[in-house]
Amino acid sequence: MALDRLIEAIKRTGNPSVAGLDPKLEYIPEYMVNAAFDEYGQTLEGAAEALLSFNKGIIDAICDIVPAVKPQAAYYEMYGWPGMRTLAKTIEYAKSKGMYVIIDGKRNDIGSTMEAYAAAHLGTARIGKNTIPAFGGDALTVNGYLGKDGIMPLIDVCRISDAGIFVLVKTSNPSSGDLQDKIIEGKPVYHHMGRLCEEWGRMLPGRYGYSGVGAVVGATWPEQLSELRAKLPHTFFLVPGYGAQGGGAADVKGAFDKDGIGGVVNSSRGILCAWKKEGCAPEDYAGAARREALRMKNDIIAVIG
Amino acid sequence: MALDRLIEAIKRTGNPSVAGLDPKLEYIPEYMVNAAFDEYGQTLEGAAEALLSFNKGIIDAICDIVPAVKPQAAYYEMYGWPGMRTLAKTIEYAKSKGMYVIIDGKRNDIGSTMEAYAAAHLGTARIGKNTIPAFGGDALTVNGYLGKDGIMPLIDVCRISDAGIFVLVKTSNPSSGDLQDKIIEGKPVYHHMGRLCEEWGRMLPGRYGYSGVGAVVGATWPEQLSELRAKLPHTFFLVPGYGAQGGGAADVKGAFDKDGIGGVVNSSRGILCAWKKEGCAPEDYAGAARREALRMKNDIIAVIG
Repeated sequence: MALDRLIEAIKRTGNPSVAGLDPKLEYIPEYMVNAAFDEYGQTLEGAAEALLSFNKGIIDAICDIVPAVKPQAAYYEMYGWPGMRTLAKTIEYAKSKGMYVIIDGKRNDIGSTMEAYAAAHLGTARIGKNTIPAFGGDALTVNGYLGKDGIMPLIDVCRISDAGIFVLVKTSNPSSGDLQDKIIEGKPVYHHMGRLCEEWGRMLPGRYGYSGVGAVVGATWPEQLSELRAKLPHTFFLVPGYGAQGGGAADVKGAFDKDGIGGVVNSSRGILCAWKKEGCAPEDYAGAARREALRMKNDIIAVIG
Repeated sequence: MALDRLIEAIKRTGNPSVAGLDPKLEYIPEYMVNAAFDEYGQTLEGAAEALLSFNKGIIDAICDIVPAVKPQAAYYEMYGWPGMRTLAKTIEYAKSKGMYVIIDGKRNDIGSTMEAYAAAHLGTARIGKNTIPAFGGDALTVNGYLGKDGIMPLIDVCRISDAGIFVLVKTSNPSSGDLQDKIIEGKPVYHHMGRLCEEWGRMLPGRYGYSGVGAVVGATWPEQLSELRAKLPHTFFLVPGYGAQGGGAADVKGAFDKDGIGGVVNSSRGILCAWKKEGCAPEDYAGAARREALRMKNDIIAVIG
């Protein structure tokens, strides 16, 4: 239940990090892009095929040392329905390798529509006599701007599918304060959203003290991360912003409780583009991703003890 | 520029309404679902094919009297990548019939990711030597919780693609007040979000006084609709909540300015399921949709003069 399977995967690998699968064509070695273009042309299908090959290489290289992947829906939508097919195949492949999959979609809508998003990403669609998962994620990021009735359908599906959600609380981007830092009744908006996570989470209790309703809190706001850790004892944190966005290990320390759990730190570009930074042979891009994933693991483990 | 093409389509048809294409399998006549299942099985492909046939029938029946359609992404995502292919084909078909297409995706993310969503829904992807639109919408609904830098990439793409966005301000659902009605510096959150629409809209001015940054304001909140109309003179409103969600013509009146422009009212289930409510032959589902679309048009026109 809840986010227990994610927490168990973190304990098993000893690694509280997640690899963000946000593949742009320019992150992918040229030989791999060209192979896909040769087969499918410079089309949406060609791009989607390149993304899939790239993702599989990354997953193969890290699945024994990284507990989870977080594909960012936008990078697949950009390549249309072939891109979405690559998203579905990437999720299927990652799960077949034992990885936990967080779909980063930041979905949000009114209740009746949220039922469809919940079915799409975490549950199943009823089609005639069949029930079929569309994307089959283990967790989904969501935006809570619409309040409780945009969240309830997710809670219901999480209960049935043993899935979880992460609600945007304090995002990693520079302008997150435009709304999130504004003060309501003496507290910033992100506190209120955090409190709602605790409230909604009571419906999905977990066995490690953390509910099935997690929160997204950016590594770029280390003070707020520590502050929220103290205020939201049952809310597990998904922490983007490490690496390319500027957050370091010291910045994410606050996400973790005294037992060293409570959060999972995401790196996307840092891992996917490690081969460029390292300057290794393009054919070794997945090896570079693994080396960076290990470096990141050790970096974080060192500060959370 | 901006939302001018939408406003012109509304003027041309004399109809400030939009048909929400939120097709669930249970809305579709059995003969049509069975035909799709016979060809593709009770699969994601079968469901997606039924949705596409249904949508085409609706579009054919209303394209001369309704200026725009609003496909809700969730109902396509529920059927996986085949569903997303139906979304793309539905958009293409509606545009070929001269309709304006608002993709209801409520997308949101940090700047670098929002570039991908903007490309996906309103722009093009660069693939080798080609630039290819993935979904090709004319406008996209978005969630502003992340602030300005989640919006800027959309503004850039809107300028290039002659597209627009609608930012969630006051949503139609019962719990929209959980966050949106909370008071910041003496004003509810939705006022602040509305003010941001005016501010962001200055970057996309339009020739009818309304910018390319519209706002979503639910018909279920008629007082707030009038209040926001007065406060946001350059912000065009997308008004969901008419019909099945309980809003009537009197409730949407406040969305319009003294010249009878300023808003477009959405009905989804009311139009798609008109054949069930009417009790007509299932084969006449599209005719029933047209009759309901005309009824709705006259209903709204009567109150806005």
